[in-house]
Parts: sequence; C-alpha cells; structure tokens
Amino acid sequence: MSVVALAGGVGGAKLADGLMRCIGSDLTVIVNTADDFEHLGLCISPDLDTVMYTLAGIANPETGWGIAGETWHALEAIARLGGPDWFRLGDRDLATHILRTRRLRSGERLTAITADLCGALGIAARVLPMTDDRVRTVVQSGTDRLPFQDYFVRLKCAVPVTGLSFDGAASASPSAEVIAALADPALTAIVLCPSNPYLSIDPILAVPGLRAQIVEANVPVVAMSPIIGGAAVKGPAAKIMTELGVGSSVTAIARHYRGLVTGLMIDDADAHLAGEIEALGLRVRTSAILMRDGNDRARLAEECLAFVGELANKRSIGGRTPSP
Amino acid sequence: MSVVALAGGVGGAKLADGLMRCIGSDLTVIVNTADDFEHLGLCISPDLDTVMYTLAGIANPETGWGIAGETWHALEAIARLGGPDWFRLGDRDLATHILRTRRLRSGERLTAITADLCGALGIAARVLPMTDDRVRTVVQSGTDRLPFQDYFVRLKCAVPVTGLSFDGAASASPSAEVIAALADPALTAIVLCPSNPYLSIDPILAVPGLRAQIVEANVPVVAMSPIIGGAAVKGPAAKIMTELGVGSSVTAIARHYRGLVTGLMIDDADAHLAGEIEALGLRVRTSAILMRDGNDRARLAEECLAFVGELANKRSIGGRTPSP
Repeated sequence: MSVVALAGGVGGAKLADGLMRCIGSDLTVIVNTADDFEHLGLCISPDLDTVMYTLAGIANPETGWGIAGETWHALEAIARLGGPDWFRLGDRDLATHILRTRRLRSGERLTAITADLCGALGIAARVLPMTDDRVRTVVQSGTDRLPFQDYFVRLKCAVPVTGLSFDGAASASPSAEVIAALADPALTAIVLCPSNPYLSIDPILAVPGLRAQIVEANVPVVAMSPIIGGAAVKGPAAKIMTELGVGSSVTAIARHYRGLVTGLMIDDADAHLAGEIEALGLRVRTSAILMRDGNDRARLAEECLAFVGELANKRSIGGRTPSP
Repeated sequence: MSVVALAGGVGGAKLADGLMRCIGSDLTVIVNTADDFEHLGLCISPDLDTVMYTLAGIANPETGWGIAGETWHALEAIARLGGPDWFRLGDRDLATHILRTRRLRSGERLTAITADLCGALGIAARVLPMTDDRVRTVVQSGTDRLPFQDYFVRLKCAVPVTGLSFDGAASASPSAEVIAALADPALTAIVLCPSNPYLSIDPILAVPGLRAQIVEANVPVVAMSPIIGGAAVKGPAAKIMTELGVGSSVTAIARHYRGLVTGLMIDDADAHLAGEIEALGLRVRTSAILMRDGNDRARLAEECLAFVGELANKRSIGGRTPSP
C-alpha cells in the first residue's frame, strides 16, 4: 500500500497527520511551496513547515501554524532594532529557517533538506516539496500583483482576489522523488487534502506533468472539501471563491476538481448537495469532516481510506466484462 | 573634546562604557572586526555586538557577552534539527545577526548598519567597525591555521598559539568615518581599552594607515592593561603572551605598545613594575583597574581622562623652550 497526499497548510496538514496515524511510512505528502518566500534574508516555506510541525506533533494547536509553546524573543528584538515584525517568526521556528536557508544557499535541494528536517523530527511519512524549483503564487487584485505573503499575512486577505498565477510554474519540474511517488506500482490512492484548492492545491497541479501523472496513475483520487456549509473551515477559501465568481459551495469544489478527482468527501451539513456533485461524475461520501483533534484526524483518514477502497472496487467491477 | 577608544570585546567594552558615562557623544569607539565570522549563514560580529550591548546597558553581566536575560530556544531547536550549537546564539542576539546579515548581503556597509543598530539601542557614543572590509584573525598553532572562533569558542583556546595573522588586513581600508574620527581637530586623546593586545587591538592596528594616524594624531595615547598581576582579567591574553614567549607581565604589554602609546594604566598590584615601564619611555599611572560594576567603569574612565590631561600638559610643557 502506498498513498500520496497533496497538501497546503493547516487543514491539509491535519488530514495528512490522520493518514500518517493510519499508514505511517506508506504515506507520502506532496506539499505546496508556492507560498515560500524570502523574508529577513531567510528562506521560509510556510506550508512545508506546517506539515512538518503537525506530523512531528509539535504544531501550535491554537494557530495551526508554528510550534507549540513558542516564544517570540528574536522577533521582539528585531522590532526593537527597527526590523519588520509583520510575519510572525517564533524562536524555535527560526531554527528551521536558518538551517534551511544555509543549505539552500550552498546549493542543496529543498527536497533533501526537508527529508533531513523530517528525519530529525522523527516523522514517519515522507514529506516532499512539490518541486525544487522556484514557484511563487501571485495574487491579482485589480491592477495590483501581490506576492502571496503580502496578501495573506500583511494585508490579512483584505483585498479582493481577481486572479491567481504561479510565477515560475511553467518552467518548474517535479522532483524525481515526486515523480517516483506517483509512479510507484504500490500506489493505491491519491488524496487531495482539505487545503485551499486555489492557493494550495492548484500550485501543486501547476507543476508541469503532475496533473497528468495523477490522472494517469489509475488509482482513486479522493478530495476532502475545505468548505463546510458554504464557509471555509479556516482561511480565505470561501472568500476567494466568491470573489472569483464560482461560489463557495462544495459543488464549486467538485466543479473545480472535475476531471482529476474521482471522489469527494463532504460534510454531513452539505449532504443535500451530493446529488449535484454526483451529477458532475464524482462519487460522494458524507461525514463529519471538521477535525477538532487527533481522533478526528485518524477517524477521517480511515473513512477516506475506506472511501478509496470502495472506489477501487467500483472501478475494478466497472472494468470487468459485464456478465451476460 | 573628542576621545577615540580602540576596543575588542568584554574588557574593552567596559572601559568604553565608562568613557561614555563621562563624555557621552564625544566618544568614538573603533572596534575590532577580525573576530567576525559566518556561522549558520549569519554574519556575526562578536566584538561589535559586545560593545553595542554593553553601551546599550543590555549586556549579560555574568558572561560579559550576549544579552541579559537571554533565552536559547532557537539554538536548542537548531541542535534538535542536527545543526551546530557550539557557538552560543541567543534568541534576542539572533535578531542582530539576522538584520545585519540581510543588509550586508544587500551591499550595505557594516559601518552604516552598526550606526543604525546603535541608534535603535539608544547608544550615545559612536561605534565604528575598524573597517568595512573583510579581515579575519587566523590563529597559528604549530602547523594548524585556525579561524579565530574555532580557536576561541570551539576549542576554548586549548591549543598553543605559535603565531597570529590577520587575513585581508593588508588590502583593507579604514572607513571614512574612522579616518575622520582620528583626524578630528577636536581630538584630545586616544585610549587603547583593556582588550587583548594580540587578538583585539593588533587587528585594528593592522588596518593600513591606522597605526600611523594614531601616532601622528599628536594627542596622548593611553592604554589600560588587560593584565593584572601577570594574569588576564578575562580571556586568553596571558596564556597567549606566554606561548608567544613575551611573558604575561604589564611590562610585556608596555613593550608591545611602545612607540604607539604614551601612557599605560596598570593595577596597583603591578606598581612595582612602574619603573621598568617608565624606562621604556612610557608614563605610568597605577590604580585599581578591575572593573566590577558601572561605578568602577566610570571611575576608571575619569582616571584615564585625568591621566590624559596630565600627559597633555607634560607634552605642552616639554615642548616649551627650557627656562634658563
């Protein structure tokens, strides 16, 4: 058995954690790196870090990002010295950025650095950046082109999104590790975690070849909705979907993922939309998909894997010559 | 009135602090930067930082270096992630290195960066790196050539020093600010702080033109001994002087500074050596030169300035045509 999960930050990390609790080292998480940026001379990979800290069991349970019990002495001193403090860098978190930056500048690959950091943190699953190349999400807001962290952290998403682009994606390549994970003969499923489809999953799919590899993997591809009852569990997903004119329903999620995803897990609150989604050609499973704690994560991961099993059976049944 | 002090780390910073308590912004401190190094991708200037933190009143009173009440969460996390922790970087201290590194990499001068950091810390005196160019102390130990921090911190000075060199010094230039401070018509004295003559003051004097400018400034040049009773107040000065075969007495300090310094302040414990030193052509003043607290610093700075006054009078008297 081998499962590949695609994830962005907080919500994605939670389901990845649930999956790791179920299948351990059989899980590979491919993580969005289009939110990465340079700040204070440090190379920061917010989604990779959220996934790493969550899988290591050291994530801050209140914020979802950062490290539990974190202190902010360096950032306070940076502010005192006149430096910028709008991006919250905790003292322990700084260690990750410092070590990563040093190795990136010496020419090492983000994939290798991430593997070592995960090893040091005792993470069983494999965590892979979507690419070792530079891809950067740019948020279009009217005539403004905003680097993602400017939009997300500095402006707190307070401007309307009129478009999104992923600078560098066209010339990026998936790493050999990403290609191998998706081509693994033991691959049984691909899971799109409940991350923002536009800001977290789309950049991964924008890396040339990845979308095709997912479609051609010939395994169930299951997404979990980041939208419950028309609202995002966390972050600006619903706001952005409304601003882009697609609406903020689970049906809009289904439309967005159509052609890629074979099954969608939605919340019980959205069960009335299951028919609409099935009419788009996707299988639906409803559940209580809000993850409040580790038990929720493990339970949902189990349900997700059961859903995958159903879809696989359906597919193999469907593939048989019909009985006379 | 204008006083220029040359300083290295802890001992030098203490007298510089005393001088600042006496004359405030009339003090310029020229600081050794040959101990600077790159570590974890950060540009670290240990002596500049010790001087800055001491003058800002935030230095750790126990260690002399670093910041009072410092925490070590980033360093602990670095160690957990497999990074090096032999050089002690505190959380608040990291802010200094991060901001400095970012600006140096963007091409700014260390002098300008230091001025801004000192401004943010509310330091009245001017703190100048000896040069904006790269100079690096290399410790020769037999056939080994050790970068200074390897010798000083990692090896804790536990190997014998057979020679010292200052890589890059020959092609370094003093900054315009350093040249201007020493050429200031209001300059009344130059003070060599009780820093290690070999490791802290010599690198400053190795910057082409600086020694000549000090000699030609035509003002009293007073040194305070870093040696009391044959031992260093702090650090490896006595050990190194013994290993280099010059002995660890105040007389050896006087010999080392002969031709540059017009007066030497020594401890009462070394008063019996005053004659030897005077025979070398230096004026001597004895006092209790150990600085235990801020009062000691201010008192010694006052005595130092009084000594300067005596030397200046002596010089102007000596310059007169002798009475018949």
